[in-house]
Amino acid sequence: MNLKPLGDRVIVKPDEAEETTASGLYIATEAKEKPQSGVVLAVGEGRIDRDGNKVEVPVKVGDKVVYGKFGGTEISVEGENVLILRADDLFAVFE
Amino acid sequence: MNLKPLGDRVIVKPDEAEETTASGLYIATEAKEKPQSGVVLAVGEGRIDRDGNKVEVPVKVGDKVVYGKFGGTEISVEGENVLILRADDLFAVFE
Amino acid sequence: MNLKPLGDRVIVKPDEAEETTASGLYIATEAKEKPQSGVVLAVGEGRIDRDGNKVEVPVKVGDKVVYGKFGGTEISVEGENVLILRADDLFAVFE
Amino acid sequence: MNLKPLGDRVIVKPDEAEETTASGLYIATEAKEKPQSGVVLAVGEGRIDRDGNKVEVPVKVGDKVVYGKFGGTEISVEGENVLILRADDLFAVFE
Amino acid sequence: MNLKPLGDRVIVKPDEAEETTASGLYIATEAKEKPQSGVVLAVGEGRIDRDGNKVEVPVKVGDKVVYGKFGGTEISVEGENVLILRADDLFAVFE
Amino acid sequence: MNLKPLGDRVIVKPDEAEETTASGLYIATEAKEKPQSGVVLAVGEGRIDRDGNKVEVPVKVGDKVVYGKFGGTEISVEGENVLILRADDLFAVFE
Amino acid sequence: MNLKPLGDRVIVKPDEAEETTASGLYIATEAKEKPQSGVVLAVGEGRIDRDGNKVEVPVKVGDKVVYGKFGGTEISVEGENVLILRADDLFAVFE
Repeated sequence: MNLKPLGDRVIVKPDEAEETTASGLYIATEAKEKPQSGVVLAVGEGRIDRDGNKVEVPVKVGDKVVYGKFGGTEISVEGENVLILRADDLFAVFE
Repeated sequence: MNLKPLGDRVIVKPDEAEETTASGLYIATEAKEKPQSGVVLAVGEGRIDRDGNKVEVPVKVGDKVVYGKFGGTEISVEGENVLILRADDLFAVFE
Repeated sequence: MNLKPLGDRVIVKPDEAEETTASGLYIATEAKEKPQSGVVLAVGEGRIDRDGNKVEVPVKVGDKVVYGKFGGTEISVEGENVLILRADDLFAVFE
Repeated sequence: MNLKPLGDRVIVKPDEAEETTASGLYIATEAKEKPQSGVVLAVGEGRIDRDGNKVEVPVKVGDKVVYGKFGGTEISVEGENVLILRADDLFAVFE
Repeated sequence: MNLKPLGDRVIVKPDEAEETTASGLYIATEAKEKPQSGVVLAVGEGRIDRDGNKVEVPVKVGDKVVYGKFGGTEISVEGENVLILRADDLFAVFE
Repeated sequence: MNLKPLGDRVIVKPDEAEETTASGLYIATEAKEKPQSGVVLAVGEGRIDRDGNKVEVPVKVGDKVVYGKFGGTEISVEGENVLILRADDLFAVFE
Repeated sequence: MNLKPLGDRVIVKPDEAEETTASGLYIATEAKEKPQSGVVLAVGEGRIDRDGNKVEVPVKVGDKVVYGKFGGTEISVEGENVLILRADDLFAVFE
């Protein structure tokens, strides 16, 4: 991806919403629950704290992360819907 | 759990809502009161304060904690509903 | 009480609402005014201020305190309704 | 008064609302304007500023003060309605 | 005036609202525009900034000042309606 | 102008709203778009930052500036409608 | 452009909204999605942080940037609609 997040932002590709329920029924688009996890595509340089020290983003490209339902902003880049979030809007990372 | 909270967040497994009243009557799901206590499943690394010192999360895995009704965000991890909260949204810990 | 408040929080047992009016009439539950005073059951360790010094909670177990109508969060612990408040939500203490 | 305000709070006894208009007519209770002045009954120890210095409350017991219409919280202490305000909610003092 | 503003507050006597329009017509009370200028009657001691230095109020008794439509609080002192404002709510001073 | 802005405020004379459209049609007063540019009439002394250093206003009398639609407060001074804005509400200056 | 942004602001020329859909259909003006990317036309001097150090704007004239749907303020300069944003409202830059 040739898009570089600014500051402590990260770009995340959200996981696909489930197409079928656990019992195999197809789920209509508008009933699909918005996923709250995805894969990190790009990370910013980090931010400068009050004492002038750099605070790096705590995740790296390829990490699978969990974020809040209302975190971040959706943008369309090269036909792909991605999410730009601040590092602080990331809740957890899969190890 | 292979999910690592970021910063000063913790993952809590909420206690089950009571299935019966004190007098033994069954409580319908929608009438059950949402529990405000649970068990800590994972804790983050803590946060960095303004002077650059690390502030650790004041609870550990296995602690039973009390939190606010509106604290945290529910997420579903591996089919299990858990709560991600900031350390400051935890009110008290059972000793 | 085996519940330890975190940070600068305190646990308060609210005074009973008055059962009768000054002239001796019984007051129905829903008309009782919510008490704004109670007794301190447990206090947290205090909080760390911006310079890294510990700020202790200004009340101790057994103190009778006054707090705001909307201060704190009610929780039920071992069948007892108690209030968890931040130290700053306590207004005054009886001497 | 055996009630000690915490921090930079003060307890004020509001002046009585006027019983009659300038021209001598009686004013019904619900039409009386809520007074915005009163007498200081008790003052707290003050607060600690960011540099760890104590900032004392700028009024003393017995001072007559002016405060905002929406400042403070009314509480009933020993059958008396008093107001608990933060020092910063006091606007002016009569000399 | 025997009323001393606390902190960085000032007491201002608002200018009279215009009684007549430019063309000489009388303006009914409810249609008069609320004046946004007045004369300073009293000033507080100033406030203490974060470094412990005193910041004085930038106007003095007798100055004619301009303030915002919604700045300050009206109070009635000795039968006179005056305005208590923070120094920062004053916009400009006539030289 | 004998009106001195306080702190980091500036007084701006808004540009006249266009009287005619590009194609020459007259625009009724209520349909005119509120201008977002004007000329600086007066500037304050600037403000003191957290370290006690003076921060000067970044524009001078006579500068043509651009500001936000909702920035500042309109006041009428000597029959002239001007705008009082904080320096930070100025967006850009014409060079 | 002879317009200089103040502080850490930048002026961005938004990309044109798509005139046709992917399948070639014309899109009516009111149905066009507002673009969230554009080209930087001018940048401010940057801002001064709490320690008195200058923080430069992280983009330069000619950069293609991505910003939030609700970031910035539209103004019309010399017949051209441009956007004035704070550096922090820029999300990412194309490399």
